[in-house]
Formats: sequence, structure tokens, C-alpha cells
Amino acid sequence: MLPLEKVLRDPIHDYIYIKHQVILDLINTREFQRLRRIKQLGTTNYTFHSAEHSRFTHSVGVYEITRRICDLFARNYATKISGDGGWDDNERLVALCAALLHDVGHGAYSHTFEHIFETDHEEMTRTIITSENTQINAVLKQVAPDFPEKVASVIAKTYPNLQVVQMISSQIDADRMDYLLRDSYFTGANYGTFDLTRILRVMRPSKNGIVFEYSGMHAVEDYIISRLQMYQQVYFHPVSRSMEVILGHLLKRAKDLYLAGKLPKDFAAELLQPFFEKDFTLADYLRLDDGILNTCFENWRTAKDPILSDLAQRFLDRQPLKSVRVTEEQADLLPKLASLVTNSGYDANYYTATNDSFNLPYALYDSKAKINLIQPNGDLEELSEVSPLVKAVTDKELGDERFFFPKQMLGTPEDQQEVFQPYYQEFSEHIKNDRLI
Amino acid sequence: MLPLEKVLRDPIHDYIYIKHQVILDLINTREFQRLRRIKQLGTTNYTFHSAEHSRFTHSVGVYEITRRICDLFARNYATKISGDGGWDDNERLVALCAALLHDVGHGAYSHTFEHIFETDHEEMTRTIITSENTQINAVLKQVAPDFPEKVASVIAKTYPNLQVVQMISSQIDADRMDYLLRDSYFTGANYGTFDLTRILRVMRPSKNGIVFEYSGMHAVEDYIISRLQMYQQVYFHPVSRSMEVILGHLLKRAKDLYLAGKLPKDFAAELLQPFFEKDFTLADYLRLDDGILNTCFENWRTAKDPILSDLAQRFLDRQPLKSVRVTEEQADLLPKLASLVTNSGYDANYYTATNDSFNLPYALYDSKAKINLIQPNGDLEELSEVSPLVKAVTDKELGDERFFFPKQMLGTPEDQQEVFQPYYQEFSEHIKNDRLI
Amino acid sequence: MLPLEKVLRDPIHDYIYIKHQVILDLINTREFQRLRRIKQLGTTNYTFHSAEHSRFTHSVGVYEITRRICDLFARNYATKISGDGGWDDNERLVALCAALLHDVGHGAYSHTFEHIFETDHEEMTRTIITSENTQINAVLKQVAPDFPEKVASVIAKTYPNLQVVQMISSQIDADRMDYLLRDSYFTGANYGTFDLTRILRVMRPSKNGIVFEYSGMHAVEDYIISRLQMYQQVYFHPVSRSMEVILGHLLKRAKDLYLAGKLPKDFAAELLQPFFEKDFTLADYLRLDDGILNTCFENWRTAKDPILSDLAQRFLDRQPLKSVRVTEEQADLLPKLASLVTNSGYDANYYTATNDSFNLPYALYDSKAKINLIQPNGDLEELSEVSPLVKAVTDKELGDERFFFPKQMLGTPEDQQEVFQPYYQEFSEHIKNDRLI
Amino acid sequence: MLPLEKVLRDPIHDYIYIKHQVILDLINTREFQRLRRIKQLGTTNYTFHSAEHSRFTHSVGVYEITRRICDLFARNYATKISGDGGWDDNERLVALCAALLHDVGHGAYSHTFEHIFETDHEEMTRTIITSENTQINAVLKQVAPDFPEKVASVIAKTYPNLQVVQMISSQIDADRMDYLLRDSYFTGANYGTFDLTRILRVMRPSKNGIVFEYSGMHAVEDYIISRLQMYQQVYFHPVSRSMEVILGHLLKRAKDLYLAGKLPKDFAAELLQPFFEKDFTLADYLRLDDGILNTCFENWRTAKDPILSDLAQRFLDRQPLKSVRVTEEQADLLPKLASLVTNSGYDANYYTATNDSFNLPYALYDSKAKINLIQPNGDLEELSEVSPLVKAVTDKELGDERFFFPKQMLGTPEDQQEVFQPYYQEFSEHIKNDRLI
Repeated sequence: MLPLEKVLRDPIHDYIYIKHQVILDLINTREFQRLRRIKQLGTTNYTFHSAEHSRFTHSVGVYEITRRICDLFARNYATKISGDGGWDDNERLVALCAALLHDVGHGAYSHTFEHIFETDHEEMTRTIITSENTQINAVLKQVAPDFPEKVASVIAKTYPNLQVVQMISSQIDADRMDYLLRDSYFTGANYGTFDLTRILRVMRPSKNGIVFEYSGMHAVEDYIISRLQMYQQVYFHPVSRSMEVILGHLLKRAKDLYLAGKLPKDFAAELLQPFFEKDFTLADYLRLDDGILNTCFENWRTAKDPILSDLAQRFLDRQPLKSVRVTEEQADLLPKLASLVTNSGYDANYYTATNDSFNLPYALYDSKAKINLIQPNGDLEELSEVSPLVKAVTDKELGDERFFFPKQMLGTPEDQQEVFQPYYQEFSEHIKNDRLI
Repeated sequence: MLPLEKVLRDPIHDYIYIKHQVILDLINTREFQRLRRIKQLGTTNYTFHSAEHSRFTHSVGVYEITRRICDLFARNYATKISGDGGWDDNERLVALCAALLHDVGHGAYSHTFEHIFETDHEEMTRTIITSENTQINAVLKQVAPDFPEKVASVIAKTYPNLQVVQMISSQIDADRMDYLLRDSYFTGANYGTFDLTRILRVMRPSKNGIVFEYSGMHAVEDYIISRLQMYQQVYFHPVSRSMEVILGHLLKRAKDLYLAGKLPKDFAAELLQPFFEKDFTLADYLRLDDGILNTCFENWRTAKDPILSDLAQRFLDRQPLKSVRVTEEQADLLPKLASLVTNSGYDANYYTATNDSFNLPYALYDSKAKINLIQPNGDLEELSEVSPLVKAVTDKELGDERFFFPKQMLGTPEDQQEVFQPYYQEFSEHIKNDRLI
Repeated sequence: MLPLEKVLRDPIHDYIYIKHQVILDLINTREFQRLRRIKQLGTTNYTFHSAEHSRFTHSVGVYEITRRICDLFARNYATKISGDGGWDDNERLVALCAALLHDVGHGAYSHTFEHIFETDHEEMTRTIITSENTQINAVLKQVAPDFPEKVASVIAKTYPNLQVVQMISSQIDADRMDYLLRDSYFTGANYGTFDLTRILRVMRPSKNGIVFEYSGMHAVEDYIISRLQMYQQVYFHPVSRSMEVILGHLLKRAKDLYLAGKLPKDFAAELLQPFFEKDFTLADYLRLDDGILNTCFENWRTAKDPILSDLAQRFLDRQPLKSVRVTEEQADLLPKLASLVTNSGYDANYYTATNDSFNLPYALYDSKAKINLIQPNGDLEELSEVSPLVKAVTDKELGDERFFFPKQMLGTPEDQQEVFQPYYQEFSEHIKNDRLI
Repeated sequence: MLPLEKVLRDPIHDYIYIKHQVILDLINTREFQRLRRIKQLGTTNYTFHSAEHSRFTHSVGVYEITRRICDLFARNYATKISGDGGWDDNERLVALCAALLHDVGHGAYSHTFEHIFETDHEEMTRTIITSENTQINAVLKQVAPDFPEKVASVIAKTYPNLQVVQMISSQIDADRMDYLLRDSYFTGANYGTFDLTRILRVMRPSKNGIVFEYSGMHAVEDYIISRLQMYQQVYFHPVSRSMEVILGHLLKRAKDLYLAGKLPKDFAAELLQPFFEKDFTLADYLRLDDGILNTCFENWRTAKDPILSDLAQRFLDRQPLKSVRVTEEQADLLPKLASLVTNSGYDANYYTATNDSFNLPYALYDSKAKINLIQPNGDLEELSEVSPLVKAVTDKELGDERFFFPKQMLGTPEDQQEVFQPYYQEFSEHIKNDRLI
């Protein structure tokens, strides 16, 4: 324990309070500091320009919410005899470390990079925590030799104490609560706000994890709805997804060129080679961050391959593709649209895509995941049973599938080339009110 | 004019309203999009972790405040006959463009980079606007052939209409008003808040630029004090300055090695070579951003030169130097302290520094700069004449000079090496209550 | 028009802008100033202690939102030829006056008073506007002799221009938007917040009133959900309703005593006599406000009638009844519970009550009321057709019915009298988890 | 202690946490509930219309800040041996009760009423706490027979533990911190905001009361400046003071008429008689609140005495006097101006006034009051010694003296009567730019 608690200024939680030396040491590791150079929301800042916050800020935020939960549990619901469903404050440190480190394995432009190079940030998180070669592992081992494994098992949800596991990952956990508030603040979209203090007040430890007082039902409901709204308004925004599509196509083009022996052998190729070849070390992975990928792209801006250089320039200078909503039944129309794009001078492999973004606002299919409300007499009621709003969205996927294509296909005359007019014309006849017809 | 105004979501101004096609086109240029990759506050996020916002967000914010001023002036104070001191709305577009572009010449880690490589962001701004080779110049020229020069002259303060010049740069301008509010929001430190709407309401065009209604005196006073507090609490924070010191030393070490022919000839050296040699093109300059410099540093982390690699690692992993306040009379003590640092195993050229950060909260020495309040009958009174608070800080530099050194010099036993104990001991005798004695 | 616009400081809208002399004159009338002395939320401040704001603040807020709508409509959607569905700015003044005055007929402790004395605040609003004897009427007549009638007809929804009518009263109008934001701010419960600026941006005039751009669907959805949450969390709070029950019983007791000739003939009786006798003038009505009724209650605190004095003291000193949720099928249990209350020493007529509070979050049964979204090509889609969340609550009453009774019935031993133990016992067997069984 | 802590929702502190049964019981007393019916800011809502919050909300806010200070002191600075300057948590309950009750003696329209009727709210606070007849006294006595006296002595600043005394009343105490934040929130003027959490973090108990860590100097400075700005911008606003002047003249007229036997013998006269005769009981005092005085004024609106009825109507319908700033040297001009007012048809005794509002932003003249900063090594430095901003306002009275008069004296022709033109003319020649000349 520190002689005097330290604080970090934070716009979401006002202050973040640190009382354990080990937490301070973890923050000061190389692997954790690296999170400053990875944006929390990938390409979302191309839509909401101020969403430039990093995974570093989110990680300390998840820590802080977890700390507040531990404080409340210790103050009001301390265990008296083993197995009574109360909170055992000996679990505090493992909970705090898992909260702080839950995202430490995220890589540069996390999801898109993963998709193209088949990496897995959860596996990397585990490796960073348990591998002998990291500063994080060294700090954790000072607590106890098996402490790194314990922390990793919380994140893997195999840790025996369900209260600790659910604090960090469940349908209403410190992770989600921090990112909703934080993304809301940094985007400037206010949909993600909910009453954090109230939710923390109605949280209670129980024998099977965490439950919520019945009187807090509306606060929990509000959180579910806020999360749904952030998905619909922010996370699934078509322009951000379009920039993700470009990023994916750009990395794929580089990989395709590399495998064909046509990628220039420069700095960028060197850095990404282990990933092109699916044979990378932890050190290769930890070297990357958003800025380093951007540096590769800046390099490629002047590459000879016209597709590589065009996609690099589109990504750096924010030139999104257009998109339109597609239903499942319309899938057979897409090849035709793609060929019209190709006819208009764009390689459809690199200039079109379908992208579906769906999310379950509240999932019941997995019985362990459900949110339970506890009545004054101890009876439990599952959330969707008592909230008509939550019921309406339970186990229903919200989101859409979109088809992406160059804006010239629908453009104004000055965007377009006369020679392709018939293709443009045919293409635009399939589109009405942002939907395919 | 756009058929329908467009908006950007912004946490400071709620929405940013765009009505001119030329503004939209400027935002979409390569040079402007590059500002997304340069942080507004350099190393401040090492102290206030959430201060990760870019110069892009600030630039559109300055545009928005300028737009609001133009709207208010046009609505309430439109000129009737030439020279009556009213607002001529034909000046709107040049004001908006100058506001949007006023910072476009900022480079990677702006101030420190400038200091080491003797570049000048104001000159670069002018070059970007007036050079034939930029997308920005091309967009501006569509308005009129001499429009780029006009915009540049507003930023250079040589434009004849003083109202336009003072909107963009004066002691209470759109630039400062946006950065105070924005930096306040993103750091989470609330010192920078003031009543923007009220200040805009009391602004008035006059024959000699912009004046403020007398009844708004307290709002203007509050702005002056808020700015002063942001300097003292945020911009001059010792930890951020320490990271700047490390950054400067790192770049200097690289330059020194390069000039001695000892810098490895890799990607990083290639990028920076034009600057090491003081012979760079606009293209060289525009290629750089914060992420690219970080990529160089990541490269240097494993360099053979121990000082280069150590400073790179210190910068990337946030390992600040300690510092202590120094008064002018104590200057002759510093060589001695530096030699104690050298004796303790650190090359004082790269591990110590003095850094002074001073700011005039309100300057009167330059008579053009003064803030004038206008009485109901048209009489003017200068701000510091009527506000005792402002009077107290007028023409007084606030800030401090600090001496930076490795924390081991004052460290706990585990930080220190026994062999250097006598030097540590002597060093620490000179320091008391954060001051040199 | 005023030579320079005036502003009022307002925490919800920052400033309220007044440009017409007639608006200023209306605010300065005796009838409008009286709204300062009537709380917006009746007894809600007994639950949320800071909800002490008056109908005055709400009324100027509704004015301000209406003004912003008019500005946006005039700027973007001005009518070109009659009947084109555009906005005719000649309608501005009638819209602003109706917005400002829509609640001017509210009386002291509005709803409860109405219920007991069978007054009608909407009728009173109309009377205040159109009666010869009011200052408001005199101000409005300066615009045109038939202007008071026009303003009244907007509030009565009989005005021919549906755009004006729907601004002031529809499912998404200036009235509701202001009270949600305002009540949210003053209670400190954040459920009522939604993105006002965004909703105003997607509002559009049309031939049949007001529609919303399709792209704004989620903002409208968010508003509907926020409103629902305010009802559930704030407006229907059991403690506030309990205080309303006490207030109603107190006024009823006074009336019963008066009609029986047993109410002391003092100041309070004099003021209320016209209402006891259902024969009151506009002057009688306008004389009352919350403070005057409280003065009556303060008087009755020492009345000889034990029920009158006890209820007065309970109301002034905040001693709510307890309550429990009741379903329709349980209605036949209530007489039994009431008799147990009587057996325990409380006259059930004055110490028990049922109170149902229900609200339709979104109503479709009335085809005129529906919220329509307009597609880029002009097609309309009704909100609940495209929002699963809104669909889930359309035409469904949310709320509950509660049975109120003295807390002694469920109290701790020190609250209770031994002699009534068997009744308490039987009573409490009917209650479990805040529900009747 | 309560089995589970209770919370009150509060917009300033989010929640107010109550853990002691005695605090809950005090809030539920008649004397404390009465504070709901007395506005915190008297006539300020005539300027800032939303400033309608009561002394009740402020009182629970002061309690909450005090509770947070106690928590921080107990956690970080608990006393180890008597006299070590640490915090003794046995003092908590007396501190909390004193905080909650410090304003309980405030009467209707506190300051103006006091001024006219020579009552003293501090004395009344003491009486309410220590008198045998109050519910508050009964609750406090349950703690210990001498507990009421202890609580009263804290408020009287005679309690031996200076830490407790300074928490409640000093230049930076829970009272001032709550009212600045609260008045700022409810007026919508943002000048009163400062970083409460930061100030609480740098507060420390010491042998001679409370000191502040040196590193928190800027936060304390910001608080001092914020307070100064609230005085200048809100508390001293000329329109609020004008309404206070009218209120004072109205009460004085009533008193004068009563003493002359000319006040109608109605309800209002009965209530105020004990105060007219300077012979009132605690019960007489506790009966009054803002609403009851307004009820008297509503009664007087139709009184035969033209001055009484006119002033009552001016107060209720917000018809302020005009005012102008006066310097000390101009005092001899005032009789002349008053006689011009009389000549114009207004009795200068009731239609003119001088009102001076001055405040010391930071006082050093009283050595006990000074704010001390503590250095890392324990040395103390007094705030104004290290802050140039605070130095600038130390022991300097800020504010002004104003002369109030009917607006007709400066009015537009339609306000004025032709017969008095020469007097108006002469009067207005003495006024320029809101100042007397």
C-alpha cells in the first residue's frame, strides 16, 4: 500500500484513486504505456472527430469503477462466514489488476488488424500477463508466483469467484460502464450516459455472482438502453465502418502484394512481414501501434502499385466509401453491383465490401449472462421479465448489413467520368432512401 | 454555399455548422487531415492522460467560434456606410478560412521539434496556404486568385480589416477561446471554463477592431483569469515539461549522432535527415506527424548508442525527470548541480536542463493589444483600469524556471547505486520544499 | 421589435432571447409573474428536494424552444408559395405568445386543487388570455383586436396552421421538450436528457404539421425513452404521490368541514370559500398560489379538528403515507385493508387512498398524434414502424396503481400502539416485496 | 447508525449520504422542514429567474461536504496521540449536526426582514437548537444532555476543537463551498464553480485548525476568485438589490402604518404584530416563511394606503427601481436627487434608497481567519503571500454603493408625466454611463 493514495485526473471519474504500489507499477510498464498509442475507437474519429482517446484512458477507467465496486462491497456487504455470498476483500487486488489489464493485448487498429492477420487480442492479453518476458509479468509476480495466472484467469472467466469475474466481464460490468461513459464524453454524443453512481449503489454480491436490487431496475434498464443507443448511433456509424473497410482492404492489398513478391522491401514491409507470414513473436506484436501503421501507410502513399497507394491515401486523408443498407434476401444482387463497380474502373475486390454490424442489446440465450434483480425478501427476478423495454430488445440483434462502394457510383457529374455513365445509371437505379431495391 | 448546412459533432460547441463548400473542401485536403495526427498539447497527456485531442479538433473549433462572431456581428452591427465601424459581411469568408487554417503549419510535436530543428510553424502555415503545390492553395484559389494571400495576411496580422485580424489573433480571440475550453474539457481540469456565449454577446466591431461592452467586463475578466489558471495548472505542469525536455534531448542526441556520422542509417534517419541538415522541403515537413516521430523513437529503443536508446525508452514509456524551481539569482548554482549529476553517471548534457515557462496573463506594453470596454455613450476604458484583478497581473510574467535532473538524485535507496551516495547526498542538500536553496 | 434583443439567463437554454416588445410586456404582467409562486412539479420536491422550480421558468423555456424552431424553419424551410408546406414567418408571433402563455392558467398545487375543486387550468388559461380584465389580454390586443383569440386557439388546438399547433402541443413539442430537460436538471435525475439541438435540426414543417427527417430517428426514439423514464423514475414516484394524497385529503377535509359549518371562519376559509361553494371569479382564482395555500395550512395546524390539523402538519412537515402496488384484480381486497386502518385508529376516508398513475409513452390510437419520419424522397414512415423500442411501448400504459396507508400499519414497534397489534399483524400479511398479495 | 445508509438525490453532490439516525431525525423535524419554504437567495430570482432553491437544499449540501471532509480526515489523518493535530473521529457527529443546522434560524426573506425588524438569524439558530420547545432540541438531546449546547457552540465558534469550527465557518468552509456551487447551478451563472474534490483532497487537519497542502494553492486561489466573481456577478446584482429595497420599504411602510394605528386589522397585521412591537416568541418567528409574507403582500395589494398597495404590487409583480452607482464623495448630492423624486410625485422615503454591497474577497485583518498552506516539510505560508491574484484583492472591499429611484425619472416619454418634465430633466443631467456625476 502507498503511504498516501495517488490520483490521476480523469474527465469521466474526476479522479482515479491508486492505493497499491503494484497498480502504480503496472501502469508504468512498457506494455501498459503502449496503450497510449492505440485509439480506443479505431476509425470512429473519422466520424466523431474528437473521439481520439486511447485504450490507456479506458483501462484506468475500468480499474477505477472496479475499485469503487470493491469499496462499496467491502463497506456494506463484507462476507461474515465463508459461502454466505458476501464480499471477501482479499479478492480486491486480483480484481483491480484484472480490471486494469483486461485490454492490454489490444493491438494497433485492433479489430481490423485482427481480422486480416488472424491475431487475437484476448490471447495476447493472456500472453502479456503470463509470459516471462514482460514487465507486467514481473510486477505481478512480486505479489505471488501464481498471481499472473490468477489475473489471467479472471479475464478468461475461469476464476472461481464469480463476483470478481462478473465485475470485469458480464452484461453490466466495469468495462462496459466505463466505455459507454467515456466514448460518450469523447465523441460528444450524449447517448451513452447513465447513472453510474446509482447502478453501483444497487449492485450486490451474492452466492452466484453479482445481482441488483429490485429498486434499481430502472437504472439498469437505462444502462441497457444507453448501450443500445451508442451501438446504433456511434459504434455502427456507416462512415466509421467505411473507413474500417478501407483499412482492411489496404492491409489485405499489402499482404497480397507481399505474398506475390511485389511489396517494396522497405521499413513497412519489414515490420509487417511476421504478420504477412503468420509467424510473429510477442515482441513483433508489441512493437506496433496506430502511429506505426500510419507510418507504413504514409510510406505506401507513394508506392507504385496504384491500388495500394490509392487506398493508403484514402485512409490517411479520410475519403470514405459510400454505403447502402442490404437485407439478407438481397444478397444475390450484390455480385451484379460489384461488377458494375468493376466496369466503372474500380477493382471490386478492393473497392466494395459488405459489412454487417449487429449487437445483442441484452442476451438471455446464455443463462449465466442474465441480469438478476433481487427483491427485499431475497427472491430473484430476471430483468427482461419486469422491464417491457428490455423485453422488447432481448435476444434481438440490432444493427444492419451494408454494401460499400466508391462514391462516384452515385456522384454528382463532376465526380464522374462520362465514359462510365451507363454503369453509374444502372447502379443508382438499385438504390432508394439509403436502401437497396 | 451548400444547399443544406452540414454539421460536425463537437463536445465543446455541440455542433459545428458549415455552410460554405470551400470550408468543406479545405477540411478534406490532405494538409488539413494531417492535423488529426498531431496532438494539440504535445506532451501534456503524460500528465493529464486524457489530453489526447488533435490540432484538427481545435482548428474546426476556432472556425466555429469565428462563424458565431460573424453571425452576431451581421445580425446586430452590420455596417451601413463605409467606415462607420460596423461589420462588413463580405469579410466573412476570409475570416472563416483564416480561422480554420491558422494552425495548419504546426508540425509533429510542434514546439520541441521547432526548437531543435529551427523550423517555424507560422512560416509553414503561410507556405502551405500560398504555395502552388498544396491542396489547400488550390481550394482557396477557386474563390479568387489573390484569396490565398488574403487569408495568409490575416494570419500574419497585416490584413487591413482589424476586426478580422483581431477575431483570429488578439488577447481575446477565437483561437484562445477555443483552446481554453477544449483543453479544459479534454484534460478534465476545469480551470479553463468561462462564459463563451456571454463574451460573444458583448463583443462589438468598432473602427479600430473589436471592443467589448462595459457591462461584460466581468465576463472578460473571468476569461483572463481562466487563461492564467490554465497556464499555471496545465500548460506549465512540471511533468509535461519534463517529458518535453526528454523529447528535446532525444532529438538533439539523434542530430548529434547524425552529424558525427554515428546514427544508424535506417528509416528514421532517412526521414529526419533533411532536418538534421537544415535543408528540407515542404513535402519533407508535411510527411511528419507525432506517430511518425514515435515510430523513429521505437526504432531507436534498440539502438546501440546507450543515451539514444535510453532517452527513446524514457519518452515512450513515460519516465520523467524530476525538477525543482530555480530563481534567477540561483543560476550560478546550476553548473555545480549538473556536475553532481554527471558524477552520478548521467551525461548532464542529456539528463539535465533548465526550462522556463512564463506567460503574460494580460499585456499592455503593446498598445495595439489592449482590451477596450465601451461605455453606453461610446467612451472607451481599458480593461486593467477598471478590474483590480486584471490590474494585478497586467504585464507581470507568471510562471517559473525549473531545473530538471534524474529522479535517482533524490530517490529512495532502491533507485540508487551505493557508489554514488556522496553525490546524491550533496545534491539533495540543495533542495527543500520543491525549491533550490 | 426591440432595438437590441434582451436575454434572460437560464440554466437549460443558457440564454433566452427576446426580440419582441410584446413578449417582454407579457412577461411583465401580473398574471405571468404569478407563475413564479407556483411550483412546476407540485409535491415532487418532497422526494427530489431540489425540484423547487416554478412554472415561470418552464414557461419562458417553452417560449425559447419555440423561438429556436421558428428560426430554423425560417432559415431553412421558408414557404415560397402558399400551401407548399413551408414555414410562413408571419406565424411567428402567435406561436411565441402561445408558447409563453400555454400554462398561465395553472393554479396553486395545480392538479390536486383541480381535482378537489373541479377547476380546469386549460379553461383558466383561455379565460386569462381572452378576458377583458387581464393585463395579458391588454398586451395581446395591442397586436390586433383578434390576437388574443388567435393565441387561445393555438392552445386549444383549433388554430388552422397545424405547424404552429404542433410546435406547442403534440407528442414531441416545445412544452414537453422543455419540461423533460428542466425537470431533469432541477431534480438532479438525469433520465430526462436527450439531444435537443439534434431534434430541432431534424424537425421540418410539412403540409400536415411537423415531421422529422428519417436520419433523426434515433434522436426522436431517445426522446420518447427519456420521457418514459422520467415518468417512471420521477413523476410517478410513490412518495410524491403520497404527499399529493395527503394534500387532497387535507383540502377535502376543509371542504367537508366548511359544508358542515365547522370550519373556523378565518382568513383561510375566506380565501377558499368561493371554491368550497363552486362559485369563484377569475380574481379569486388568480389570488391563489402555493404559498397562500401553505399559509392556510399553517393556520390549520392549530385547528381544533384533529384530522384537519394532523393532515396540515403532515403536509407541511413531510410525513408521507406508505404505499403498496395494487393490481386490478386485487381491488376487492382494498375495503378490507381500509377497515383494518380504521380499526387501528385512522379514519380510512382521510388516511387511505388509491392512486393510479399511468402514461402512454407513445400513442397511436389517435391518428393525428403520430410522429412521422420523412425519407429523402418524401415518403413518410410512422415512428413505431421503424423503431423496435418505440414499438414495444406504443399504446401501452406504463405506471401503476398504489394503495396508500399510514406507515404505522407496517411500522417498527416504537411507531405502533400495542392495542392495535392484531390489526397491524393482519394488514402486514397482505404485503410482500412492495406488492399486495 | 442506520443499518443501511440512506441517500438523497442532489444535483450538486449527486447523492447525499446519511448514516446516522439522528441526522435523519433532524431533517424530519418541523423546524428543519420549514427551510423548504425559505428561498436561499431572497430576491435574486427576480434577476436570475431559476434561482428558486431553498435553504433546505443548501443545508443538506453543507452537511454532505462536512461528511466528506470527515471521511477524508478519518482515512488519511486520524489522530494517534492526543494533541498531534490529527482528526479525532469522535468529533464527527457534532460537526455533522452543526453543518446541517447552521442556517436553521433563518427567517422569511432573511436579511431584509432582519434589517427592518431587528431580528438576528444567528441568535435564532442558537435558540432553536438549545430551547426546550423545539423538535430539533429533542432529537439532539437523545445523543447527550449537553449535546445541543455543543452543537450551538460550534456555530458560535466557541467550540474548543478548531478543526470542527473551521469546517463550518472560516474563509473556506463547507457552508461557502456549498453555496457557491449551488447558487451557480441554480442561477445558471457559471462563475461559482471550482474544483471541490481537489480542495477536499488538499485539506488537512492541524493543531490550529485546518490547513491546505501547498500543492493545492491554485485550487484554493480558484475558489477565492470564484467567490469574488459570484459576489460581483450574482449576489450584488442591482436588480435583486432593487427588489430588496422595495421589500424593505414595504415592510417599513406597514410598520409605520401599524404604529400610527392605520394598518388594517387583518390576518397580515396579526401575524406581523409581534414584530411591529418588537415582542415576539420563537413560535411567532417559526410561523413565518416567504410564502406567508407574500400572502400578506397579496392582501395589501388592495389596501387603501396608496404607498402600501403600490409597493406590494411592485414587489409581487417585479417592478424594480432603477439605480446608479454612487461614490462616497457624492453623498451630498443625494438629498437633492431625493427631492427631485419627491417633486415628481414619489415620496422619497419609500421610493429612493441607497444600498451598499461590499465584500472582502479575502480578509487578513483578522489573523485567525487566514488561509495557511503547508509545505512538504511542515512550514506554513499564508495564501496571499504566494498568490499574486489573492494578494491583489486581500483586505480590499469589492462592491459598490447605489442610489435607487423610480424608473420614470429616466424613462421614455410614455413612462413620464408631462407636468414633471423639468424635474426629470434635472435628474437625468446627473447621470452618465451608470454613474452619478
